[in-house]
Amino acid sequence: LVSVLSSAIIVYRLPWTWKCSKLLMKYIHAGLNTIAMILAIVSMVAVFEFHNAKNIPNMYSLHSWIGLAAVVFYSLQLFLGFAIFLLPFAPVPLRAALMPIHVYSGLTIFATVIATALMGITEKLIFALKSPVYSASPPEATFVNCLGLLLVIFGALILWMASRSHWKRPPEENAKVLGPIGGTPECTEAESTMTDGSNADRSDLRINSEAARKQHLKVDEAGQRSTM
Amino acid sequence: LVSVLSSAIIVYRLPWTWKCSKLLMKYIHAGLNTIAMILAIVSMVAVFEFHNAKNIPNMYSLHSWIGLAAVVFYSLQLFLGFAIFLLPFAPVPLRAALMPIHVYSGLTIFATVIATALMGITEKLIFALKSPVYSASPPEATFVNCLGLLLVIFGALILWMASRSHWKRPPEENAKVLGPIGGTPECTEAESTMTDGSNADRSDLRINSEAARKQHLKVDEAGQRSTM
Repeated sequence: LVSVLSSAIIVYRLPWTWKCSKLLMKYIHAGLNTIAMILAIVSMVAVFEFHNAKNIPNMYSLHSWIGLAAVVFYSLQLFLGFAIFLLPFAPVPLRAALMPIHVYSGLTIFATVIATALMGITEKLIFALKSPVYSASPPEATFVNCLGLLLVIFGALILWMASRSHWKRPPEENAKVLGPIGGTPECTEAESTMTDGSNADRSDLRINSEAARKQHLKVDEAGQRSTM
Repeated sequence: LVSVLSSAIIVYRLPWTWKCSKLLMKYIHAGLNTIAMILAIVSMVAVFEFHNAKNIPNMYSLHSWIGLAAVVFYSLQLFLGFAIFLLPFAPVPLRAALMPIHVYSGLTIFATVIATALMGITEKLIFALKSPVYSASPPEATFVNCLGLLLVIFGALILWMASRSHWKRPPEENAKVLGPIGGTPECTEAESTMTDGSNADRSDLRINSEAARKQHLKVDEAGQRSTM
């Protein structure tokens, strides 16, 4: 779940995808988030059935409260993201105004999911380790603690990638952003390999994208201290 | 601890402090962080003494591992912040290059501290509630769960304030930023009340700062999608 969520977050941050159309990248972002949502629902159903089978009360712990809140906000985020950024109805100024909120909520939900996982790991280690107990530091405890620490490092790396302005996809003209009008959702490299001998076009495109990236960086440098 | 940390984070984000000199604000930021560090050390000593008195092993849980990692990175952050941004030796380009890293580490450490607190709350509820147990949802459990939820909401609000570009202190000339040369660390309002009848100066300053803020916003709008 966390890995699908992470790929959904950083999908715009991979320089080798910048030659793909924005629409294709949006489909991938939305698709990965939909997969993550399905995984979240499946695992919640599994937890409730496990609790019911073992006669453990549901929703009593802080882990469950914050986890449920994260899932609720995540569904909201997915629904609003679909309605505003994927469907072609919302005007560009509205999208521009809501994008920082969408990014902030997405990253905050991601951090909350990691915090929930850490609480879940803590609970599980306390309840599952009986002889020897958790506080006696059996190998399982040390191993799972390491996994928890790696989860934090992994989350921090994803947040770093998602918040660096120079890893941001260079801006495009708005026509392509709004919907499928005037462009199929494909990678431009694939397009150029279809039309034979258009290597000139390809390098042109690469130069343009490089120029856009540089111009973009210049703007960012001016407001550098704003980016987190 | 979390509240001192939070005030240290958002101290540059309070518009009524924008008339204070940057140096004074840096002193406040550094001072609050030093207080938070002292509180963190005091509470760690208390935990170790509590454990030793009750014959509970130290440093076995994920909570303690991640908490210790957060404190280690926090001391590093404090030391480097002091050496680079407060002492007048580091050149401006170095400061500009390291500032995004300083901001990222600060916010990531803050989020990690909240996650550690949530794990600590989970542990404490499991260990302390015996009759009735945590899973029976006694009033204390519900009450402390609510506190944990409020902690997440509070953390999310602080991260929101710290990452909005229009709540950022408008930029100043570099002379003042580098050190105490050419300016005492005071609020300009206090200065203007000292020199009688200089209301014109004051409103001038206010207009300048408003203009700087607007110009600043314009730059940010261009790179808006970069801010998290």
